[in-house]
Amino acid sequence: MQNEINIKDIIITDDFWSKYIRLVKDEMIPYQWNVLNDEANIKIDAERDDENIPIEKSHAIENFKIAAGLKSGHHYGYVFQDSDVYKWLEAVSYSLINDSNSELENIADGVIDLIGLAQQKDGYLDTYFTIDDKERMFKRLLESHELYCAGHFMEAAAAYYSVTGKRKIIDIACNLADCINRYFGPEEGKIHGYDGHEEVEIGLAKLYSVTKDKKYLELSKYFLYERGKDSNFLKDQLKDDNNKTFILPGMGKLPQKYFQVHQPILKQETAEGHSVRLMYMCTAMADIAYLTNDKEMLEACTKLWNNITSKRMYITGGIGSTVIGEAFTFDYDLPNDTMYCETCASVGLIFFAFNMLKNEPLSLYGNVMERSLYNSTISGMALDGKHFFYVNPLEVDPVASKNDPGKSHVKVTRSEWFGCACCPPNLARTLTSLGKYIYTNLNNTIYTHLYMSNEVDILINNNKVSIKQETNYPWAGDIKFSLNIEKSSNFSMAFRIPDWCYSYSVKVNDEKAEYKIVNGYISILREWNTFDTIEIQLDMEIQEIVANPNIKDDLGKVAIQRGPFIYCLEQVDNGENLHLIKLLKSSRYEYEFDSKLLGGVGKIKSKAKKLIIDDSWEGQLYRSDKKSPIYEACEITFVPYYSWANRSVGEMRVFINKDL
Amino acid sequence: MQNEINIKDIIITDDFWSKYIRLVKDEMIPYQWNVLNDEANIKIDAERDDENIPIEKSHAIENFKIAAGLKSGHHYGYVFQDSDVYKWLEAVSYSLINDSNSELENIADGVIDLIGLAQQKDGYLDTYFTIDDKERMFKRLLESHELYCAGHFMEAAAAYYSVTGKRKIIDIACNLADCINRYFGPEEGKIHGYDGHEEVEIGLAKLYSVTKDKKYLELSKYFLYERGKDSNFLKDQLKDDNNKTFILPGMGKLPQKYFQVHQPILKQETAEGHSVRLMYMCTAMADIAYLTNDKEMLEACTKLWNNITSKRMYITGGIGSTVIGEAFTFDYDLPNDTMYCETCASVGLIFFAFNMLKNEPLSLYGNVMERSLYNSTISGMALDGKHFFYVNPLEVDPVASKNDPGKSHVKVTRSEWFGCACCPPNLARTLTSLGKYIYTNLNNTIYTHLYMSNEVDILINNNKVSIKQETNYPWAGDIKFSLNIEKSSNFSMAFRIPDWCYSYSVKVNDEKAEYKIVNGYISILREWNTFDTIEIQLDMEIQEIVANPNIKDDLGKVAIQRGPFIYCLEQVDNGENLHLIKLLKSSRYEYEFDSKLLGGVGKIKSKAKKLIIDDSWEGQLYRSDKKSPIYEACEITFVPYYSWANRSVGEMRVFINKDL
Repeated sequence: MQNEINIKDIIITDDFWSKYIRLVKDEMIPYQWNVLNDEANIKIDAERDDENIPIEKSHAIENFKIAAGLKSGHHYGYVFQDSDVYKWLEAVSYSLINDSNSELENIADGVIDLIGLAQQKDGYLDTYFTIDDKERMFKRLLESHELYCAGHFMEAAAAYYSVTGKRKIIDIACNLADCINRYFGPEEGKIHGYDGHEEVEIGLAKLYSVTKDKKYLELSKYFLYERGKDSNFLKDQLKDDNNKTFILPGMGKLPQKYFQVHQPILKQETAEGHSVRLMYMCTAMADIAYLTNDKEMLEACTKLWNNITSKRMYITGGIGSTVIGEAFTFDYDLPNDTMYCETCASVGLIFFAFNMLKNEPLSLYGNVMERSLYNSTISGMALDGKHFFYVNPLEVDPVASKNDPGKSHVKVTRSEWFGCACCPPNLARTLTSLGKYIYTNLNNTIYTHLYMSNEVDILINNNKVSIKQETNYPWAGDIKFSLNIEKSSNFSMAFRIPDWCYSYSVKVNDEKAEYKIVNGYISILREWNTFDTIEIQLDMEIQEIVANPNIKDDLGKVAIQRGPFIYCLEQVDNGENLHLIKLLKSSRYEYEFDSKLLGGVGKIKSKAKKLIIDDSWEGQLYRSDKKSPIYEACEITFVPYYSWANRSVGEMRVFINKDL
Repeated sequence: MQNEINIKDIIITDDFWSKYIRLVKDEMIPYQWNVLNDEANIKIDAERDDENIPIEKSHAIENFKIAAGLKSGHHYGYVFQDSDVYKWLEAVSYSLINDSNSELENIADGVIDLIGLAQQKDGYLDTYFTIDDKERMFKRLLESHELYCAGHFMEAAAAYYSVTGKRKIIDIACNLADCINRYFGPEEGKIHGYDGHEEVEIGLAKLYSVTKDKKYLELSKYFLYERGKDSNFLKDQLKDDNNKTFILPGMGKLPQKYFQVHQPILKQETAEGHSVRLMYMCTAMADIAYLTNDKEMLEACTKLWNNITSKRMYITGGIGSTVIGEAFTFDYDLPNDTMYCETCASVGLIFFAFNMLKNEPLSLYGNVMERSLYNSTISGMALDGKHFFYVNPLEVDPVASKNDPGKSHVKVTRSEWFGCACCPPNLARTLTSLGKYIYTNLNNTIYTHLYMSNEVDILINNNKVSIKQETNYPWAGDIKFSLNIEKSSNFSMAFRIPDWCYSYSVKVNDEKAEYKIVNGYISILREWNTFDTIEIQLDMEIQEIVANPNIKDDLGKVAIQRGPFIYCLEQVDNGENLHLIKLLKSSRYEYEFDSKLLGGVGKIKSKAKKLIIDDSWEGQLYRSDKKSPIYEACEITFVPYYSWANRSVGEMRVFINKDL
C-alpha cells in the first residue's frame, strides 16, 4: 500500500496552472458564492428543457435557511441544488491551503453552521425533502439525488476537515452517514437499494479516509455491490410510492443503462448510460478496490477503463457521444458535432484515472488524466473564469447550433451559469485540488504523473523527501526535479512518459542517467541525496494524429497535437467554412508562443489549401462533375483547443481534412 | 389555361410501374383494409414516442361505427385516424380506373355510407370529436387535425366521384365543406384561423375542381392567406380552451415555424418546420395560384421551391433534415445518417412539383418530381408491397440505429404498419394515380414530364390526340410516342430533358427532327397526323454526382446515378464498413440489368479500394501516423437506392468516399 500524499503538502508554483487556481480563488469562488446567495446579476442558461423546474436563480443558500427554520418558504431549483453548495465548499477547502483567507474561512464556517441547522435530528440532510416532501424521503431514489447530495457533502467535509482540522463538518457528515446506514444495507428491514446517481460511494470512501471508521467503507462497498443486482429497484420504488408525481419529469422514461443498473457492476464490461454517473461509479469502484484490496472490483474497473479509453473517448479526453441521456452510445461512435462531452464527465474521468493510479502505476492512466485535464476539462471554462461550457464539442458551426435542434445543446459561447449548475463548481473543486493528482507513492517509488512546477513533501520509508519540480510545461518539455532529503536513501523515482512523446532524455545531476522503462515510466532506482537533480526532457514535436479508422467521423482527417494540447482551427483566425480547408500531403507546422494571444498560448501555423466554391454552384445542389476540385493556397493557424471561443462567435474544428 | 387531363383517360402499361400499381391493388389495398378493420395480424411500429396514444391496432373503421351510433365505445388511436380511411378510399378510387372491381367498389360504397352515418346533422365530420370531445370541436386546431382530416376526405371524394361518377360522397364532402365554411372565414363571428396541419386547402381546391362551386375555392384561398397572419392563433386558441388537456401531448411546445405560421405565407422565403406540412401548404398554394391566376401566390411558391430544391433537398428527393419536428433545418444542412426524409414529404414534393407544372412548364419541376418518385418515394415501400419506411436515410449502420438514440428513428427494416400510419396510404394513393403526373396540356402544347409506357387521350383544340408511349425506362432511355389523331393539327409536343441527361437524339417518323429547346423541353411544333411517331433517345450514362461543397457531409464523396436512379452500396453486396470503401480517381463503372436481383434491377459494378484496419489499431483510438494508409483492391456493386433493405439487415450508403 502507498502512503497517501497530503494535499496540504503540495504547493503549485506553475505559471500555467497558477493562473487557473487564482481564477478559481479570485473569481469563481466569490462569484459562485454570490450566485448561491442570489446576489449575482447573472444570466442563467437553461441548458436542458426541464419544464416545471424553476431556474431563474440559484436559491441554494435560501433552501438551507428554510430547511433550518430560519426562513419560511418552499424549496426552489433542482432537487439536487444542495450539491452546488457542497461542491463550492469543497473548492473553498482546497483554496484555503497555503493561502489562508480568514474571511473566506469565516463564510465557510457560517455555511457549515447553517447546514448543521438544516440537518434533521436523525441526521437526515436534504433541503428539498425536508422542506417540501418529507413523506417521500428515500422513496424516489431514481430521481431524488438524496444520496448523491449526501456524497458531495461528505467529500466537502473530508476536504474541509483535512485542510482546517475543524471537526464540526465531519460530525455533521458522520451523522448523515449514520442516518443513511440506518436506512440502507443488507439487513432485514432496511432498503436494499442504491441512488439513481452514483456519488455517495465516493463520499463514504473519503469519509472513511479521514475518520478510519470502517462502517463507511462497508456502506460504500454495499452500495456498489447492490447496484444492478435488482435492475428494477429504482422503477419498482416509484411504483410503490403512493404519490406518483415526478420530481424530475422525464426521468421515469430513462433506460436501466442510463443509471448503470442493467447488470451488477462486476458484470458491466462496456461504458453505458449517463457518462457522469458512470465516471462517479468507476471512481468509487477504483477507490474501494484500492482501499479494500478487492481484485475482482479492480478487474471490473479495468474492463470499463479499457472500453472507454480504447473505444469510446474523444481525442480531447471528452466522453459521452450523445446528448440524449448525456450518454455513451457504442464502440467507435464519436461524432464531433453532436456529442455531449460534458465538462463534469471529463472531470470524472480524471477522478477515475487517478484512483486507478493508486491501484496500479501504469502510464496509460496518467496519459488519459493529462489528456482530459489539458483539453476537454479546462475548455469548460473561459479564460476569464466566469463563463462555462457544459458541452465541449470538437466541431462547431454557429448556424447549425442555432438552426438544427439536434445541435441546440452545442453552445458557441460559454454561459454565465446553468440551471443545472454541476459543471462550474466541479471545475472549481478540481482545479483547487490539482496538487493531489501529480504524484503517487507506492512500493518504494515516487511516481510523477503530471508535470507542472510545484513543491511537495513526500514521506517514503519514513523519510521526508522534498521535491521541487520546475518546468515551462505545457509549452515546453524540460522538467527539472531538485531533491531535499532528510537522510540519503534508496528508492525509485518514476516519471511518466506521455503517450505523445516519442523521444526524450534523462539526466541525473547533469549527467546521462541509467533508467529502466517500467509500465510507461522512466524509473530510476538509486540512492538519492539532497541536492540531487533529475532533468527530464520530453520532445514536444508537433504531431498529426490519426484516429482509428473505425471512427467514421474522423476518416480522412487529422488532429494536431503538441505536448498535452490538442489544437483546433477557429473561424476568427481562418475564415468561415473550415470544412473546406485541407491539409497538404506534406504539411509542415511551425510553432510559436504568442504571449499576447489568448492570455499566452503556443500557436501553430501551416500552409494548407481551401476548396473554392465558385459561382457555377449557385442554385445547384448536385451535379455530374468530371473536373477535379479547385483549391486555393492558404495559411492556417491552430490554437490550443481549450482556448477556443474566447474571442468571437464562429466555427471551430479539431479534426481537419487532409490529403492522405 | 390548360385542359385538365382526366385521369380516367390514361392507362399505364409500363413494366416498372405496373408492378407497383398491381402491388397496390393486390396487396396494399386489401391489406390496408384489413388493418383499418383490425383484421390483420400485424406488428405496429410505434415510430414515435407519443405516450398515451394507443397504437395496438388501427380501429379506424370502428371509430366510424361508434361515431355513427352503430356501436358503443370510445375513439381509439391518433386524433387523425380518420384520414387513414380517407387516403385508402382515395387509393381505391384510382385503382378502380380501367380495372373495375365491383367487390372493391361495393366495399368502398359501404365505407362511404358509414362515413355518411358518422357525419353530424350540421355536416361536421370527425370521429374523435364526435365520439369523445364534442365540446372542443374546432377549439384546438393546433393539434386537432379536424380540417386536415376533412381535406383528405374531400380529396377522396373528388377522386371517387371522378372515377365512379357516384355523387353520394361528394354530397357528404360538400356538407362538410359547408359546415367548415360556416365556422371559418373573414366574416364577424366566424373563427379567423387555420388548421395546425395544412391539407384542407388541397381538399377544397379539389372539391372546387369537381363541383365548380367557387365558395370552396374561396375558402381554400382564405385558409392560405389567413395562415401566419396572426402567428399566435393556434396557441392562443389553446389558452382560450377551458379544458387544457392535450390531445397530442408535446405539440404545445412546438415552435411557430413547425406549423408554417411564423409569417404570412407570401412572406415565407425559406422552407421551415414540419416538412410534410410545408409540402401540403405549397401544394395548395401552387394549385390556388393556378386556379385563381394569383401571381403573388405563384411568386411565393417559386421562392419556397427554389429554397427547397437548391438548398434543402437530398439527392434522393428526400426532404426534412432532422427528426426533431420532422423538419427542415437550414441551407445546405443535409446530413445523411440523421435526416428524416419522410416518405410522405417526398410524396408531397411530387404534389407540389406537379402543381407548379400546371402553372409553368419548366423542366426543373419535372426533374424534381422524377427524382423524388424514383428514389425517396418508392424506397418507402418494400418490393413485397407490405412493408414501409417512414424515414428514408442515405446512410445506415444498424449498430448505430440500435445504440445511438439520436438515430433510433432510422430503421433498418421496413415495418408492417405504423402507429401514425400516414405513409403507407399516401404511397398507395400516389402510385394508383401516377398517370396524372405524366402529361400536362398548356398553350397548344402537350408536355411529357415523365417517361413510362402508357396510353392516353388528350384533348387539344377540341381535337382528341391519342398517344401511345412505349419505353423500357427507367432502365433504358429510348422512348417512342405513336400518335392517333382525330384530324391533322398544328400543335407542339414537348418532352422533358432530364437533368441527368447530357446527350440525346430526337427522331420524328424515323428521321432526324427539327426541334427547339424551350424551358428544358425538346419542343416540336408541326402538323401532327395519325401514325406519326416520335422517338426520343436519352443517353443513360453512369454518372458520378458531386454535391455542392457547402454540404459538409458529402464533401470528398460522390453518389452514383444512372437515369433517374440514385444508386447505393449495401453491406450484403460489399461487406461491412462501407465507410472504408473509396472510389478510385479514375473509377470505371459497368452496368448490367440483372433480372434475378431484387425483382429485376440494373446493377452497377466498379473497382475500388478499401482501407485496411490492421491489428496495430487494436485497443488504440488515436496515434501519430506518418505512414500512408493501406488499402486493398475490391470490387463493389451498387443497386438502385429504392431497392435497398430488401434482402438482409446491413449497412447502406449513397455517398461514397472518392479520391478527388
